[in-house]
Amino acid sequence: MSHSIRARVTALGHELPEPALPGATYVPFHIHNGLLTITGQLCQWNGERHFVGKIGETLTLEDARAAARMSALNVISQIVVATDDRMDRVASIFRLGVYFNATPDFSGHSQAANGASDLFVEVFGDAGRHTRVAYGVSGLPYGVAAEVEAMVSLRD
Amino acid sequence: MSHSIRARVTALGHELPEPALPGATYVPFHIHNGLLTITGQLCQWNGERHFVGKIGETLTLEDARAAARMSALNVISQIVVATDDRMDRVASIFRLGVYFNATPDFSGHSQAANGASDLFVEVFGDAGRHTRVAYGVSGLPYGVAAEVEAMVSLRD
Amino acid sequence: MSHSIRARVTALGHELPEPALPGATYVPFHIHNGLLTITGQLCQWNGERHFVGKIGETLTLEDARAAARMSALNVISQIVVATDDRMDRVASIFRLGVYFNATPDFSGHSQAANGASDLFVEVFGDAGRHTRVAYGVSGLPYGVAAEVEAMVSLRD
Repeated sequence: MSHSIRARVTALGHELPEPALPGATYVPFHIHNGLLTITGQLCQWNGERHFVGKIGETLTLEDARAAARMSALNVISQIVVATDDRMDRVASIFRLGVYFNATPDFSGHSQAANGASDLFVEVFGDAGRHTRVAYGVSGLPYGVAAEVEAMVSLRD
Repeated sequence: MSHSIRARVTALGHELPEPALPGATYVPFHIHNGLLTITGQLCQWNGERHFVGKIGETLTLEDARAAARMSALNVISQIVVATDDRMDRVASIFRLGVYFNATPDFSGHSQAANGASDLFVEVFGDAGRHTRVAYGVSGLPYGVAAEVEAMVSLRD
Repeated sequence: MSHSIRARVTALGHELPEPALPGATYVPFHIHNGLLTITGQLCQWNGERHFVGKIGETLTLEDARAAARMSALNVISQIVVATDDRMDRVASIFRLGVYFNATPDFSGHSQAANGASDLFVEVFGDAGRHTRVAYGVSGLPYGVAAEVEAMVSLRD
């Protein structure tokens, strides 16, 4: 049995993107007193943006779910860096924020956010069972469809 | 004097809804190192959604305030479960997020959010005095009017 | 070398507004177990609101950046009160939430949020390097353009 997060993700048949570098003065993650906070990750892959558009207009619920999942893979890439790829350091993913660039009449945020939620439980098991907020926003950076942030508690 | 949160809420003349069960892989609350995080609660009552619609269009500021209060009662129902209904375990409600499904020209988010804020102070006293963010979103799950999330610090 | 946050801000050529008082039952900041949480601060100055309007309509990206910066100065005013103006108590600014009252087609949230991010790094140095979420919302209290919230870890 592997204790590598990356190996676990790969064994499940997923790929991980390169961890995204912030374009500004903020940082991709922060650890203090066992609390790992991760910057909102967009639906991009190795620097290339995907799912650019508005859900309910040019993008569907299925797109939204896939965009949330891609953002979540970027969150996991940051967790790999933050923990030195040690699964045993992840005590629990305790809060996800899942935000969608959606029209005012879109109401499938909960179903779409499951694209992120299900992945965390698949990868981390019980330690991946998180609390969540999910809603539509008027817009996201660079016009992408989804942004996912996470708070994680770590073991020493 | 009762140390039951539920008894306190009842003595104030309010009812509590059944704690909402998530429809997916996330969880309604999470406790780690004395930090209780609660999933965003919608304005529903025992599984039935209320205040479905957009504030500033089909719903008024008074509706928004009542929707925030109903979401907050759902948050309190989760706190009852998380603490085994022990008021003395609640050290402080330290952050509320109050989100409204509102039109782009609505600007009464602060007044509407008081529907949640006032309830927490009424029920928990000084321990209920929290920091807050409140704003409008482009849409909420199932088209409801309000979502409230909370972070709470617990005593052993 | 000064250990006053206010002195540091002044030495950098900035002014600080009076710390804003909440108009309701919530509080401007909260400290528990070394975790300082700060209520979402609007772009106002000593009680007078600035940058009232919608980004992408009546306000520009430059306005958005300036509004985020003003909101961030209000966050710093709260940190001054919360820490008794002691720079050495600020272990790290670890999460910023930066929210913009913007049109559905605005996509410059990241550039605009740098108005807040850069200020925190300028004032607090490495301790100011934070994780971040930034997005557009359908509306903010009183119709202002920006709201910034912060979570800060403190030393004893």
